[in-house]
Amino acid sequence: MGQEEIKKVLQQYKSGQIEIKEVLEKLKHFPYDDLGFAKIDNQRQLRKGFPEVIFCQGKTLEQITKIAQRIKETEGKMIATRAAPDVYQEIKKIIPEVTYFKEARIVAVAVEEKKQVSSKFILLVSGGTADIPVAEEAAVIAELMGNRVERLYDVGVAGLHRLLINSKKLLAANVLIVVAGMEGALPSVVGGLVDKPVIAVPTSVGYGVSFKGLSALLTMLNSCAPGLAVVNIDNGFGAGYMASLINHLNEVKE
Amino acid sequence: MGQEEIKKVLQQYKSGQIEIKEVLEKLKHFPYDDLGFAKIDNQRQLRKGFPEVIFCQGKTLEQITKIAQRIKETEGKMIATRAAPDVYQEIKKIIPEVTYFKEARIVAVAVEEKKQVSSKFILLVSGGTADIPVAEEAAVIAELMGNRVERLYDVGVAGLHRLLINSKKLLAANVLIVVAGMEGALPSVVGGLVDKPVIAVPTSVGYGVSFKGLSALLTMLNSCAPGLAVVNIDNGFGAGYMASLINHLNEVKE
Amino acid sequence: MGQEEIKKVLQQYKSGQIEIKEVLEKLKHFPYDDLGFAKIDNQRQLRKGFPEVIFCQGKTLEQITKIAQRIKETEGKMIATRAAPDVYQEIKKIIPEVTYFKEARIVAVAVEEKKQVSSKFILLVSGGTADIPVAEEAAVIAELMGNRVERLYDVGVAGLHRLLINSKKLLAANVLIVVAGMEGALPSVVGGLVDKPVIAVPTSVGYGVSFKGLSALLTMLNSCAPGLAVVNIDNGFGAGYMASLINHLNEVKE
Amino acid sequence: MGQEEIKKVLQQYKSGQIEIKEVLEKLKHFPYDDLGFAKIDNQRQLRKGFPEVIFCQGKTLEQITKIAQRIKETEGKMIATRAAPDVYQEIKKIIPEVTYFKEARIVAVAVEEKKQVSSKFILLVSGGTADIPVAEEAAVIAELMGNRVERLYDVGVAGLHRLLINSKKLLAANVLIVVAGMEGALPSVVGGLVDKPVIAVPTSVGYGVSFKGLSALLTMLNSCAPGLAVVNIDNGFGAGYMASLINHLNEVKE
Amino acid sequence: MGQEEIKKVLQQYKSGQIEIKEVLEKLKHFPYDDLGFAKIDNQRQLRKGFPEVIFCQGKTLEQITKIAQRIKETEGKMIATRAAPDVYQEIKKIIPEVTYFKEARIVAVAVEEKKQVSSKFILLVSGGTADIPVAEEAAVIAELMGNRVERLYDVGVAGLHRLLINSKKLLAANVLIVVAGMEGALPSVVGGLVDKPVIAVPTSVGYGVSFKGLSALLTMLNSCAPGLAVVNIDNGFGAGYMASLINHLNEVKE
Amino acid sequence: MGQEEIKKVLQQYKSGQIEIKEVLEKLKHFPYDDLGFAKIDNQRQLRKGFPEVIFCQGKTLEQITKIAQRIKETEGKMIATRAAPDVYQEIKKIIPEVTYFKEARIVAVAVEEKKQVSSKFILLVSGGTADIPVAEEAAVIAELMGNRVERLYDVGVAGLHRLLINSKKLLAANVLIVVAGMEGALPSVVGGLVDKPVIAVPTSVGYGVSFKGLSALLTMLNSCAPGLAVVNIDNGFGAGYMASLINHLNEVKE
Amino acid sequence: MGQEEIKKVLQQYKSGQIEIKEVLEKLKHFPYDDLGFAKIDNQRQLRKGFPEVIFCQGKTLEQITKIAQRIKETEGKMIATRAAPDVYQEIKKIIPEVTYFKEARIVAVAVEEKKQVSSKFILLVSGGTADIPVAEEAAVIAELMGNRVERLYDVGVAGLHRLLINSKKLLAANVLIVVAGMEGALPSVVGGLVDKPVIAVPTSVGYGVSFKGLSALLTMLNSCAPGLAVVNIDNGFGAGYMASLINHLNEVKE
Amino acid sequence: MGQEEIKKVLQQYKSGQIEIKEVLEKLKHFPYDDLGFAKIDNQRQLRKGFPEVIFCQGKTLEQITKIAQRIKETEGKMIATRAAPDVYQEIKKIIPEVTYFKEARIVAVAVEEKKQVSSKFILLVSGGTADIPVAEEAAVIAELMGNRVERLYDVGVAGLHRLLINSKKLLAANVLIVVAGMEGALPSVVGGLVDKPVIAVPTSVGYGVSFKGLSALLTMLNSCAPGLAVVNIDNGFGAGYMASLINHLNEVKE
Repeated sequence: MGQEEIKKVLQQYKSGQIEIKEVLEKLKHFPYDDLGFAKIDNQRQLRKGFPEVIFCQGKTLEQITKIAQRIKETEGKMIATRAAPDVYQEIKKIIPEVTYFKEARIVAVAVEEKKQVSSKFILLVSGGTADIPVAEEAAVIAELMGNRVERLYDVGVAGLHRLLINSKKLLAANVLIVVAGMEGALPSVVGGLVDKPVIAVPTSVGYGVSFKGLSALLTMLNSCAPGLAVVNIDNGFGAGYMASLINHLNEVKE
Repeated sequence: MGQEEIKKVLQQYKSGQIEIKEVLEKLKHFPYDDLGFAKIDNQRQLRKGFPEVIFCQGKTLEQITKIAQRIKETEGKMIATRAAPDVYQEIKKIIPEVTYFKEARIVAVAVEEKKQVSSKFILLVSGGTADIPVAEEAAVIAELMGNRVERLYDVGVAGLHRLLINSKKLLAANVLIVVAGMEGALPSVVGGLVDKPVIAVPTSVGYGVSFKGLSALLTMLNSCAPGLAVVNIDNGFGAGYMASLINHLNEVKE
Repeated sequence: MGQEEIKKVLQQYKSGQIEIKEVLEKLKHFPYDDLGFAKIDNQRQLRKGFPEVIFCQGKTLEQITKIAQRIKETEGKMIATRAAPDVYQEIKKIIPEVTYFKEARIVAVAVEEKKQVSSKFILLVSGGTADIPVAEEAAVIAELMGNRVERLYDVGVAGLHRLLINSKKLLAANVLIVVAGMEGALPSVVGGLVDKPVIAVPTSVGYGVSFKGLSALLTMLNSCAPGLAVVNIDNGFGAGYMASLINHLNEVKE
Repeated sequence: MGQEEIKKVLQQYKSGQIEIKEVLEKLKHFPYDDLGFAKIDNQRQLRKGFPEVIFCQGKTLEQITKIAQRIKETEGKMIATRAAPDVYQEIKKIIPEVTYFKEARIVAVAVEEKKQVSSKFILLVSGGTADIPVAEEAAVIAELMGNRVERLYDVGVAGLHRLLINSKKLLAANVLIVVAGMEGALPSVVGGLVDKPVIAVPTSVGYGVSFKGLSALLTMLNSCAPGLAVVNIDNGFGAGYMASLINHLNEVKE
Repeated sequence: MGQEEIKKVLQQYKSGQIEIKEVLEKLKHFPYDDLGFAKIDNQRQLRKGFPEVIFCQGKTLEQITKIAQRIKETEGKMIATRAAPDVYQEIKKIIPEVTYFKEARIVAVAVEEKKQVSSKFILLVSGGTADIPVAEEAAVIAELMGNRVERLYDVGVAGLHRLLINSKKLLAANVLIVVAGMEGALPSVVGGLVDKPVIAVPTSVGYGVSFKGLSALLTMLNSCAPGLAVVNIDNGFGAGYMASLINHLNEVKE
Repeated sequence: MGQEEIKKVLQQYKSGQIEIKEVLEKLKHFPYDDLGFAKIDNQRQLRKGFPEVIFCQGKTLEQITKIAQRIKETEGKMIATRAAPDVYQEIKKIIPEVTYFKEARIVAVAVEEKKQVSSKFILLVSGGTADIPVAEEAAVIAELMGNRVERLYDVGVAGLHRLLINSKKLLAANVLIVVAGMEGALPSVVGGLVDKPVIAVPTSVGYGVSFKGLSALLTMLNSCAPGLAVVNIDNGFGAGYMASLINHLNEVKE
Repeated sequence: MGQEEIKKVLQQYKSGQIEIKEVLEKLKHFPYDDLGFAKIDNQRQLRKGFPEVIFCQGKTLEQITKIAQRIKETEGKMIATRAAPDVYQEIKKIIPEVTYFKEARIVAVAVEEKKQVSSKFILLVSGGTADIPVAEEAAVIAELMGNRVERLYDVGVAGLHRLLINSKKLLAANVLIVVAGMEGALPSVVGGLVDKPVIAVPTSVGYGVSFKGLSALLTMLNSCAPGLAVVNIDNGFGAGYMASLINHLNEVKE
Repeated sequence: MGQEEIKKVLQQYKSGQIEIKEVLEKLKHFPYDDLGFAKIDNQRQLRKGFPEVIFCQGKTLEQITKIAQRIKETEGKMIATRAAPDVYQEIKKIIPEVTYFKEARIVAVAVEEKKQVSSKFILLVSGGTADIPVAEEAAVIAELMGNRVERLYDVGVAGLHRLLINSKKLLAANVLIVVAGMEGALPSVVGGLVDKPVIAVPTSVGYGVSFKGLSALLTMLNSCAPGLAVVNIDNGFGAGYMASLINHLNEVKE
């Protein structure tokens, strides 16, 4: 429940539109909703500007659907990540209006996205074809959070001209998310070219000493290019969220 | 050499103030200045909005002073990080106007800092007293890049009330840098409370399985709190630079 | 065979209730019972106050059921952990009165639990929904060992208010078991709030650099909060056992 | 400042012994004392039953003495760990009554230790001679927190009879702290013999694949003996504190 | 082909029993037999006193059977380790007289084992039931190499009396192989009790920080007990072979 | 598209054979071909002398076939590595003339291989039978790149004579690729014998502390034998490519 | 105190040579001698056939000399390893007859070494010059334990002929100790050539990914050559002790 | 002693210029020279085309000078790497004609370098100023082995234009050695641009998760750019040697 909803409830009460009983009813799941196996953080939207997102991995289908239903009821919107197709099928049964972003493995209730018409866009850059699922997770999250997103995929350093030819796009972006597996050198190279914040996302793509993304992660943390910060391996969600916070910054309050 | 300087040179030439010879003289170290052991990136300011910063560790005193002198000459300003007191003494001999930020281990030529009078400040949060040198490196860099910086030190999770009492300050910040060693849990807790981007900096403070900051780094990368990205262990410079890029975002262009 | 049983046997012999032959018969599997592939530690109850618990993982179904049967015969009670449903089915065939604690993956003969009516309870705190199986293993073990157990699940640091609202419960507990995966920061935060011993249990929940619980483990070992000790990743059994020892301390002897 | 001190202040005020001004004066550093580089947690004693302990490693001499002085003033007692001889010399200058426990590297103001006359003692067991500094850190902390402590040093598993001959002492202890480096097998063996909680402390003693205590730590975490929990490498302080919490449990409140 | 076989061939030739053609025929696969995908080391028995043993893991069924057949033909005996049941079934088709040691996962042609009647036996000691497959691999290899082998299973350190009660057997052994998973402390304890060489074998039994046997391996390498050496994780074959070499030492040549 | 093709197009245009429209048509996928999920590097052949090779692992069947088709169309030849049998089946449907090198897991369009008749050959040496798939990947790549390749398999250091007997072949080779798993000692030994460049390839063959090839990799990097460089674990492709570059060196330009 | 000494004391008593008081006096430090900081294992010689050896590293000079003196008094002989020159100087003051083996860093009281005149010798093989200190530690220990020792130094695999030329010596040895740093391949090669037990000792010699001996250790544990076991990095003492146990085996009892 | 020297000796003998006694005298240190602590590989030049190079690290000054003297006498030339200034001073005393390459830490007897006049040069590329000592080690070794070497230093990926501007030089090189610390991305980028073999050298330059060069090493091994192989961290010598072998390839024999 966000600030706006709470304000509205209190104003309705003040103006006599609703009774104290209704106020209590509406607030009863505030600040959290206790399902026993989960305490849904209903204060999250108030605190973070965005409701809790369900991380499906490690949860049972039953737990996921119950949490999804409750968040949908309370917040009006709902996002679930790392959602395999069967998760989508189950949620669809109780929330028929959900959309499934297959490559991104995201199930979401299509909130009216106040997509920015502005020129401030987040650019998703990825090293290879196999990195796309992680890149898409970031892209879809950023779009669901109301950002304009552009994509520039498969421009890894082994064929640098593919990146350099697109330097105009790189320089035009407001925030960049750079996704790469294997040696993970792409964020360093991009970071050296632009003057905007770069979020680097290592992926578990690779073999041998890629160590499931660890090598790419180390590369990114060691980057000599300033203006770059890193998230966990395969954490497209975290990168999209962070980029969205940055992209919206200084916007609302002006 | 930044965009402004290059523009000015070209305009002076066009208006007849300077001869072609002088233009060439001024541009002769563009795009880089080759000292043999170093190629100073004179295009950096143009590309990244800020001139190259000297990372002193691993360079000889002689190399550092030569690079410092050349950058000072070309760019008008100069910043050197990881600078021990003897580095400061050496640079002072050739650039008498330098300032030494002792705790931050930074030597800098005091550029006229167009410090924002605005309410948009970067908040430096640190877990313990021993983390302060890293926190100060971040703080001083951000200040030298023209940001207002506030500090909130020694508010680690073992005494959580020290942090919670300051929640007003936390919520008022535009960007947060959270510095912690040992278990490195502070960024997660801060990240759960605010709706602004958090840059997490692990430090090498600790013993035993802190593994010189590795444990803190892993904690931060694994953080469940969204809106958080991480830099290398003890990389105060990188955090300050990233926070500055974010804080200035959407500002110049409006 | 515990101290009480041995005493009783010896008293019965002294009072003429049983013959020397019967005494020998009863003691014949003391101090251990050799099944060839296993030597059941019949002295365990005498030494540790609790009979040997069967760790099912890595044992064949045939080995488990033989050991279970023998322990049941000798000790009157029997506990098996890491027991998949098929283990339960097999044991049930030979010991029909067993109970299966599904989430905790524990099969046990329902010993008359002298549950404390006292106010001294062990509090189980968990970070996320996916940590519940490990938390339940700890909770059920503690209950089977005669402790009152309370549960407080899904109160991770990303939504700290869920924990702080429950601070009364936290402060009322006699011993706390805090279970968390991912960054594993919860035990540090809880440890900073209470003045009772905290047993921290890292779980293998997570992805990327969680390294199957290693990151959470390191966080807990590095904790700045005093009064905290750690067990192996996913070792709910060990945490429950340790907490029970602590909770019963100073109790019997007074 | 502990509960008792706060109560006394309030009662003195109520009974007219002191003025409101004096109350405020006494409470002005509550809940924390801000020295800029450190926020002394004055609420710690209230919350944890024991004032903040200074971890000297990583702090400057100046920082340590300032913090020590302030804690001494506020709490009446003061403990500093990981204190090299020069730390002791500096603190002595401003707090002449401090004692230096050389082997334990602890500087402390000799609080009137209400040492238990009771039979409930904490037993310190160590594997080798080189482990003694860590064992002593634990022992001294436990003594300073009001516990009776017994020591059993150099009883490593390579000469098991040294341990077994002392089994009476092992069985008499209320809580055990077992300190070992190299292979770190001692806690497992002790844990198999007693029915009381065991706190295992790995030390950095060893060479080659001891990896500065990591091997001993892993051994202890993997222990098959139930009733055992582990602290960080060389963390004698944490073990002593935890053991004290456990030993005092169920005592005060009855 | 061993020394004896070669001698016999040469003597038969000298005494006219066989023609030069037959000698060449018999020696034609000497020193190795080239199957393309494998070069069977026919000199191995000559050099090492025992023919090449087939390590099945990583080889196809077709490769294994071809190698087995050729070794059987050349050497008269054949041993294959890490052999799953289907490997046994395939080899049986072409070498019907093979035996399958199921727990040890070994397929062997039953060579007339000149089992020592002597009192010099190798003692196999194992920590837990789940370690038995590795222990059996060692035991069977040692038996196939002509040693008397005794077994003492499930005597881990959590119930030390099970080991100490058998100290007579421990002291009577000529060489000891000690197999343990989890914390791997058993070899240290055994090594402290006996005055004979101990071969320590870590197993991959365990969970969490056992790291698939790494923790047990480190424990064994760090052992303070002298007279102990270590082989790779789960390498029962290597331990059995080494113990056999040691047990036979000084025997043949006297 | 290689230098020759581009030259030809331009010459045809100059000589009037083709119109400007046709030139543009032929060059329209230059410098890369954007399939959305992949940007095929059409400049690769020009830059590296060999077209882009498809690394199948981590790509969907649909992605692989689309990329394969486009490369085939543009370059006339096509190579795909890490190709499981189903990949081969799919590609065959659209490019019927492909060949499948089963052991090497390579699918390729049989380019007219201008196999060198020269005496300069690349020698593939492997330690064990299980290393052959990686060795074959290297061998086939080198052959497809126009090199004469010789093979010497299963000559590991445990039976050194198998290697030494072949020293003539070793000394005759122009470049050597040495493939080994487990302890990975073979490249060191070979490197000590020859005076030609050795490319060392660790494989993931092994168990226990082989750590899926890490141990072999470290051995090779630590090698005391000069004239040796290393590629990633199981990277047969990389080794074959590197060896080919070296073998062709100084050849074209003379 | 060994079996012989105890027997003698008891016989002297029986025969009336000494009084009961003297018996007690002689046995009073049996089974261990408690110095507070150390419990000298006086039963060690009885149990292991050799008195306790002092590992100096990590002990203070005062502790070392006290332990040395006591062992000398009780056992008649004394050995201290990892002894820096100052340790030697200190011990010499109280035990003037000690010898210092400088390269081996061993201080020992020259026991009358009943050096075997027999042909059964232990062969010390080392890879490089820098490995000699570790090799000498092993050699001197073996000599002090009454073995004939031969040395073959600097025969690493980069110049294999240096080893092969000495194959006669290799084959003549009864037990082999092979010491190597860097890639640690030497034990594998030696193990493939001989039919006697090989003790492999990794050393911390190397740089980069030698990881202070870890790489060499892994190589040795992964060795394909059977009949090889490994000790800790730089553990010359352990190797010498193990080799001596093996070399003396089957000797005393025949 | 190289092939030429041996041939000459034999021819002189055949032609009667020298007596058999002199031949033996000249060959007496063949195939190796036994100094006890070292066996100088006099066959090395014959086998590898270049005499043994002394790796000074870990050897005493006395050992180094003795080895240097003997190699100088036998081979006429001498190279010692990782030589600190005091090593140079000592060698100079006995071989006055040595040269010291200070940055490269190499001491060498100035052999008449038959420097190629040819256009085939080795290009040394380095990422940063601090990488120069390693780059120089490679460069000097290559020069001493008779190659033309060009240098391109401080062209790291954070300022990519510094590299791209020099692409003509990159494309002209016959073999490339690319040296980089921190994230180690430079070899990937260079490898993507050229069609010649690239030797990648990670350096220990960096901090935090650079892990003393491990991160850079992993990056290089994971490189997507084909035609690249890697040597140990800081192994400038190995890279220079390998590059020289490659550069000279196909040259002598044509």
